[in-house]
Amino acid sequence: MSETMKAAIFVKPGEMTVREVPKARIEQVGDAVVRVVRACVCGSDLWYFRGLSAHPHNSQIGHEAIGVVDEVADAVTSVRPGDFVVLPFPYSCGTCPVCRAGFESVCPHGGYFGASQAEYVRVPEADGTVVKVPGSPEDYDDETLASLLTIADVMSTGYHAAVSAEVRPGDTAVVMGDGAVGLCGVLSARMLGAGRIIAMSRHEDRAALAREFGATDIVAERDQAAVDRVLSMTGGYGADAVLECVGSRQSFDTALGLIRRGGVIGRVGLPHDVEISAEGTFYGNIGIKGGPAPVRHYDLEAGLLDAVLERRIDPGRVFTGIYDLDQIQAAYEAMDRREVIKSLIRF
Amino acid sequence: MSETMKAAIFVKPGEMTVREVPKARIEQVGDAVVRVVRACVCGSDLWYFRGLSAHPHNSQIGHEAIGVVDEVADAVTSVRPGDFVVLPFPYSCGTCPVCRAGFESVCPHGGYFGASQAEYVRVPEADGTVVKVPGSPEDYDDETLASLLTIADVMSTGYHAAVSAEVRPGDTAVVMGDGAVGLCGVLSARMLGAGRIIAMSRHEDRAALAREFGATDIVAERDQAAVDRVLSMTGGYGADAVLECVGSRQSFDTALGLIRRGGVIGRVGLPHDVEISAEGTFYGNIGIKGGPAPVRHYDLEAGLLDAVLERRIDPGRVFTGIYDLDQIQAAYEAMDRREVIKSLIRF
Repeated sequence: MSETMKAAIFVKPGEMTVREVPKARIEQVGDAVVRVVRACVCGSDLWYFRGLSAHPHNSQIGHEAIGVVDEVADAVTSVRPGDFVVLPFPYSCGTCPVCRAGFESVCPHGGYFGASQAEYVRVPEADGTVVKVPGSPEDYDDETLASLLTIADVMSTGYHAAVSAEVRPGDTAVVMGDGAVGLCGVLSARMLGAGRIIAMSRHEDRAALAREFGATDIVAERDQAAVDRVLSMTGGYGADAVLECVGSRQSFDTALGLIRRGGVIGRVGLPHDVEISAEGTFYGNIGIKGGPAPVRHYDLEAGLLDAVLERRIDPGRVFTGIYDLDQIQAAYEAMDRREVIKSLIRF
Repeated sequence: MSETMKAAIFVKPGEMTVREVPKARIEQVGDAVVRVVRACVCGSDLWYFRGLSAHPHNSQIGHEAIGVVDEVADAVTSVRPGDFVVLPFPYSCGTCPVCRAGFESVCPHGGYFGASQAEYVRVPEADGTVVKVPGSPEDYDDETLASLLTIADVMSTGYHAAVSAEVRPGDTAVVMGDGAVGLCGVLSARMLGAGRIIAMSRHEDRAALAREFGATDIVAERDQAAVDRVLSMTGGYGADAVLECVGSRQSFDTALGLIRRGGVIGRVGLPHDVEISAEGTFYGNIGIKGGPAPVRHYDLEAGLLDAVLERRIDPGRVFTGIYDLDQIQAAYEAMDRREVIKSLIRF
């Protein structure tokens, strides 16, 4: 009989459960298996949970985790059992021109995790994927573990929004979206030196955290009213940089309305019905950059891992709900109802 | 009776002529009037000439010129009569946040010249627009004057394509379009340190000049065949940077096909029926940047003026046909028939 493990299962929209499934195991020569210590629920998981996008019923789910290496295949050289690692949501070969250019998240030899809300997870291309953390999970407090978990996705994604939007010292940056990614976008804009950070939020808890992360202004308006508000705050010229952390057509159109001519919209929200006008962006010299965040690049090359370990940033504060795996339904529901900003799953 | 001057007139598609019109004059406090020494025909002028886009019949035309200041209005402080200047195709206030960010070409207080193929041209916002050249036109040979004329538009536009595409040292860059802008894009990619420059061309004269400007490879194929060719030249990964200097849907689609994931398409060709897939670009982390080139910024801040004056670059070689103003019909026809790469007009 094969070994089993507990895993979160997406039963159907609105319904999560936990089931015993075959334990994750080595399948390829570059694989590792990691025992999960912390996982979490992503805003993108809510698209399935809410029935707004298709996902196979009765399937495993999740793509953010930190944990301890349990087993490695023969070809893996960079980690060994017992090592503490962050698992970026994309896996990647780490050696091709796309990875070397710092875009591991779109490595043509890679892909995305989809079963990380579980006791164990299989890690393909382990050498090109994992981010090694010194010591073991027991060496860190809960706050640091939570922040390490954010550099598996949301913090790195917020950072990608800020880098893609080309935030420069002194800039006025607008952050669209007050979910965990948007809040990490605020923190990232601050790290890159933005002088004024306007966070779009109409939820008091999120606006408060945005302020602590560095937002200088909160705008609760939406659509044209939000555009008018930001234009009035910037002498009519618009914001130097926009971090689009939602992905809806409404949000993107608002971003186009409030970006300064010559500015860049950095987008990390998965696009849903977004339309990009080839003429409008051209005649305004508006740049559009972004996509899935190259997590590993930012964690290692841009120093997010060190920033967390040295407590210079504390992005783990986006986890305002903490659950055991058995409470997976509650973890999803609380995020769906906006009762928490982001749900952390303890193992 | 008011003074008159000779000016090129777009009569209707296929027909240019020269007529006596009222001499350009000061209209606003920030204006200058410049006596034109060299002007030229732009690839974008051919859209009207070929009847492919609308333009008022019997109207003046042209947006590229160098010349000598003839007259200045009271508020103008940076130049005086007798000064030698390059006239960037956009005029701009030079002081607003858009200009200060280096995007004078989309200054909300500015606009575009439209009557530069004439003996005199009115320059709005002169202090924020002109690029002063040391000495007078008589101090320079014809080759240098031709190169100075290119930094009114085509050379600066090719440079904007390269900067927008984020060409970095060692990159493989593809240049779409073998007109004067594309050729200047080749030169610009070389200036930015590209290691391999693939020029798309199927015209022997243009391919030869592309090689002299720094192209390491010429690709004559189009559409999917061009994509296949570039992918085979780059190990299947695509080019690090694409300079899109055409603006057609066909060219943009080809650019999307051959850009490496994580790469940026820098576009300067006026878009015609271009569609940008919000999903395709996102999931490939493909950046789209560009628009009308901030000529003045590149001439002064990026050093194109100095590069021309010190003969480090010789972009004036794109002018393979030289005409007097009275030969304006021939100047347009020769470009239309691709008998010349770009037509220069002497005064």
